[in-house]
Amino acid sequence: MYIEKINGPQDVKKLSIDELNALASEMRDALLHRASVHGGHFGPNFGIVEATIALHYVFDSPQDKFVFDVSHQSYPHKILTGRKEAYIAQEHYDDVTGYASPIESKHDMFTVGHTSTSVSLACGLARGRDVTNGKGNVIALIGDGSISGGEALEGFNVAGEMDSNLIIIANDNQMSIAENHGGLYKNLKLLRDTDGKAECNLFKSMGLDYVYVKDGNNIEELIKAFKSVKDIDHPVVVHINTLKGKGYKPAETDKESWHWCMPFDIETGKTTVNFPDEEDYSSITTDYLRNKMKSDKSVVAITAGTPALYGFTPDERKAFGRQFLDVGIAEQTAVAMASAIAKNGGKPVFNVYSSFIQRTYDQLSQDLCIDSNPATILVQTASVNGMTDVTHLGIFDIPMISNIPNLVYIAPTTKEDYLAVLDWSIEQTDYPVAIRVPVAELVSTGKPCTKDFAELNKYEVAQHGGKIAVIALGSFYGIGEQAAKLIEEKTGTAPTLINPYYITGVDTELLESLKKDHDVVVTLEDGVLDGGFGEKIARFYGPSDVKVINFGLKKEFLDRYNPADVLKENRLTPEQIAEDAVALI
Amino acid sequence: MYIEKINGPQDVKKLSIDELNALASEMRDALLHRASVHGGHFGPNFGIVEATIALHYVFDSPQDKFVFDVSHQSYPHKILTGRKEAYIAQEHYDDVTGYASPIESKHDMFTVGHTSTSVSLACGLARGRDVTNGKGNVIALIGDGSISGGEALEGFNVAGEMDSNLIIIANDNQMSIAENHGGLYKNLKLLRDTDGKAECNLFKSMGLDYVYVKDGNNIEELIKAFKSVKDIDHPVVVHINTLKGKGYKPAETDKESWHWCMPFDIETGKTTVNFPDEEDYSSITTDYLRNKMKSDKSVVAITAGTPALYGFTPDERKAFGRQFLDVGIAEQTAVAMASAIAKNGGKPVFNVYSSFIQRTYDQLSQDLCIDSNPATILVQTASVNGMTDVTHLGIFDIPMISNIPNLVYIAPTTKEDYLAVLDWSIEQTDYPVAIRVPVAELVSTGKPCTKDFAELNKYEVAQHGGKIAVIALGSFYGIGEQAAKLIEEKTGTAPTLINPYYITGVDTELLESLKKDHDVVVTLEDGVLDGGFGEKIARFYGPSDVKVINFGLKKEFLDRYNPADVLKENRLTPEQIAEDAVALI
Repeated sequence: MYIEKINGPQDVKKLSIDELNALASEMRDALLHRASVHGGHFGPNFGIVEATIALHYVFDSPQDKFVFDVSHQSYPHKILTGRKEAYIAQEHYDDVTGYASPIESKHDMFTVGHTSTSVSLACGLARGRDVTNGKGNVIALIGDGSISGGEALEGFNVAGEMDSNLIIIANDNQMSIAENHGGLYKNLKLLRDTDGKAECNLFKSMGLDYVYVKDGNNIEELIKAFKSVKDIDHPVVVHINTLKGKGYKPAETDKESWHWCMPFDIETGKTTVNFPDEEDYSSITTDYLRNKMKSDKSVVAITAGTPALYGFTPDERKAFGRQFLDVGIAEQTAVAMASAIAKNGGKPVFNVYSSFIQRTYDQLSQDLCIDSNPATILVQTASVNGMTDVTHLGIFDIPMISNIPNLVYIAPTTKEDYLAVLDWSIEQTDYPVAIRVPVAELVSTGKPCTKDFAELNKYEVAQHGGKIAVIALGSFYGIGEQAAKLIEEKTGTAPTLINPYYITGVDTELLESLKKDHDVVVTLEDGVLDGGFGEKIARFYGPSDVKVINFGLKKEFLDRYNPADVLKENRLTPEQIAEDAVALI
Repeated sequence: MYIEKINGPQDVKKLSIDELNALASEMRDALLHRASVHGGHFGPNFGIVEATIALHYVFDSPQDKFVFDVSHQSYPHKILTGRKEAYIAQEHYDDVTGYASPIESKHDMFTVGHTSTSVSLACGLARGRDVTNGKGNVIALIGDGSISGGEALEGFNVAGEMDSNLIIIANDNQMSIAENHGGLYKNLKLLRDTDGKAECNLFKSMGLDYVYVKDGNNIEELIKAFKSVKDIDHPVVVHINTLKGKGYKPAETDKESWHWCMPFDIETGKTTVNFPDEEDYSSITTDYLRNKMKSDKSVVAITAGTPALYGFTPDERKAFGRQFLDVGIAEQTAVAMASAIAKNGGKPVFNVYSSFIQRTYDQLSQDLCIDSNPATILVQTASVNGMTDVTHLGIFDIPMISNIPNLVYIAPTTKEDYLAVLDWSIEQTDYPVAIRVPVAELVSTGKPCTKDFAELNKYEVAQHGGKIAVIALGSFYGIGEQAAKLIEEKTGTAPTLINPYYITGVDTELLESLKKDHDVVVTLEDGVLDGGFGEKIARFYGPSDVKVINFGLKKEFLDRYNPADVLKENRLTPEQIAEDAVALI
């Protein structure tokens, strides 16, 4: 076994081409076994094994610096840079993150999880090197799916004016997470079809030098190409044609499903995780939108490269024609288009992860909210119980979104409320509306929702009580209910329990009325407290005698955490909340 | 005079080519006179007169829909769409905004002031049209300077996959606000040099059809080109070669200075506004950075297309070589590069308007703050006293920036503090630091600043007092001082006066100590209250007996306002603050 002897890039350099090929095969075996047990990004890593070996064979990390875009394809790099145990020894699988990490290794430059950043970051490393008289190559590795993102395209353009060493590996596996979208992919195809010889060339049109590698899974070819650009004195793109998921038949065949995987059976490729076949907020979204889009041809479902959020099959997506719009990785354009579709009579829904809506602050503000166009945005996995990687947290969207004027941001808490607000939002024509899709077990009241969502900032009192009022937002409403019960047990007085729904505004009338017979107002929110919902309540009561205690998360970048632990640390269990609230009366 | 008879696009269509040329000349005269009296965007409008006439001659607005990028070049469009009085009658000059405005006219689709949005917005209008079986052409007009922005490049790529009518006019005047930056401009030059015939073509590489117009200031040529693409069934780029500032010699010669102008003398081109030749926060920034960059070659001044913020001459910029980095309009890349320059040993400073830093939320969060790289960001005109157009407000940066973990956001209040914090920030290696450059008359203490900024979140007590504490942030510190005096007059007790400096954190020790002998804490901030600084103080004191009253701005999109009026409406005069604070004790 070669893989066991690799303790760093220097050990890669000792091997012959045949040995490197054997190493590639061993690395794939390790990746396959680990993925089958542990899950993780699959296709991106399987496609890039040979290129990673060739990079470490030719370049000298960390003197030469790599930046992996998204870095979900950095597993082979981790294997070759002293972290092989995390891939060959099951008990060490969790020693590494799923992304590049400067904390883990000096061979990783940045913690990267969002797409399309590598070229700009590499430009910066190059400039930093040049103004400090530093040495070494700077190499960005970007997948073709990431190229459509604004920051990446900006980066290519800026790179085209740089005047010193900068190498951009464009890993063209003809896929984003799902299929690629956008006109530039026709050009990549043209380049592949002409062995890189076509005159019309996106990269050259951005001012960049260009090298094409026909078989991006051939180590010898790659080494030759990388050697040809090593120590180059200007920016160059090395366009390598690779096979996503290479080496595992199911992944080569169904590239979208195998972009990322849960644990699975290697023989069959079938997942070994049992999903209960129950309704959840995803499935009811899919069902609702499927029907809505069929009955109203002006409804447009928009995604920025994550079509799976809708739960439609690829065939359904196709059948929806112009009603299903995947702009590729281009969140900014998704928001702008949503605004303009609404302006021109359509009914757009943009479905996006909390972590990725961060890429659209200016579009929300300028393209959408200033003109108050009636687009609907579904914000997904916005919760401490969402994704737990530092690059994919769902706990910052409230401060980011909710302080933009004109936007109506609503957090429903039951199936009936959620579907009602979604339908209301699509049909109304007055405001941009974002909906914080609940991240919690589905709660169904069985009763139709009668709330008039057009009456903005009208909170609902679920239980009238005294002394303490609990205002529990969105996904934390259940915790609020439990805390309310405990408060009643402790004090003998039932507290008032309020479902605020609206994140973007304060129900001043209701809050004013609470002053009469309440001493303490408790707020709960599923996100960081800073800039969030609770602080607005604290501001409201600031000049009064009512005490306010805000429960939510500390402002920090959490990483690979246990949500239960984090809730406890932030005093967010029902018991802790009740205890702290009661202490104030 | 033809201009006087133009009450809408229908009147343009009646004219002969000769008459259209005469109209163009009259429009330029009107624009020149208005600019000399009123100021405003100059070069962009002078270059686009003929194209705008030709557009309205060929297309049928508002059935055909125009989207102007940035829309600072929409003056000729306004003249031709029923708003001519605002350009020919001095008493009506202020009837219109400087940007497109759906409130003003049905011929304006969106309120646009940030760059690079038009193509994505046009894609959305086209999709909205198609799903509602609508009719008409959709036309985006984008200047070459805007093309380098991420949202624009995303938009071109998405447009390249659209399958119905969409026309993108690329107005190539070989300029951004200053000179263009990035590799793609070499391609535009190649296209100009080959009459659009070069095979390597950025737009074609994005999957778009392409038409070139050699003289973009020739009405006849333009009409021919626009007629050739009218009602086209797929997306096409019409690349027109125009002269920025055309028709006014000084503007043709010094395009950067004449991008936007203050009132001036038409004969000489010299401004008629007298600027006092005094130190201000701009001039001391320029002086400081000029010296710093000369003495430390690792300091890199970064701008995203607004180099004038630095106050260096074009020659100085050039002389700084790799130390002066203008990425063009590409704010996302600017932040990413700042992070990476810092990572690789350089000392980056990114100088950016408050309104434009909105374009970088995700880069601040992901590319910069997760890894806590020590870049410095200067946030300019962040104030109610900054720019007053709805698209350029400086009152939202605190909620947007300050709730991102790891970032240190500091608001100094004097010359000495500002220069000290700037120098500290550049030299320290622990945090990303943003500095809210004061928007107020320069205050100099004459004494060196001794504050240790590394002691994060340490507020400074300027005056020890009792009962009331006034915490006055940044540019509003002066108002806080005045309010404190009035409070003393009213109550006979001097309040405590605190300069918090840190926007991103709370000095819990100091705030805790205030509980002893203070009943009321007043906060002041120069921005919207929602998600801002004061709410954090309100949260801190929420569970206590201390009352808190937050002063700042209501969350709303203000437009072309009088700052004094807005301050008064928000109870932000020293008298109002003192009155409200005293009422609480």
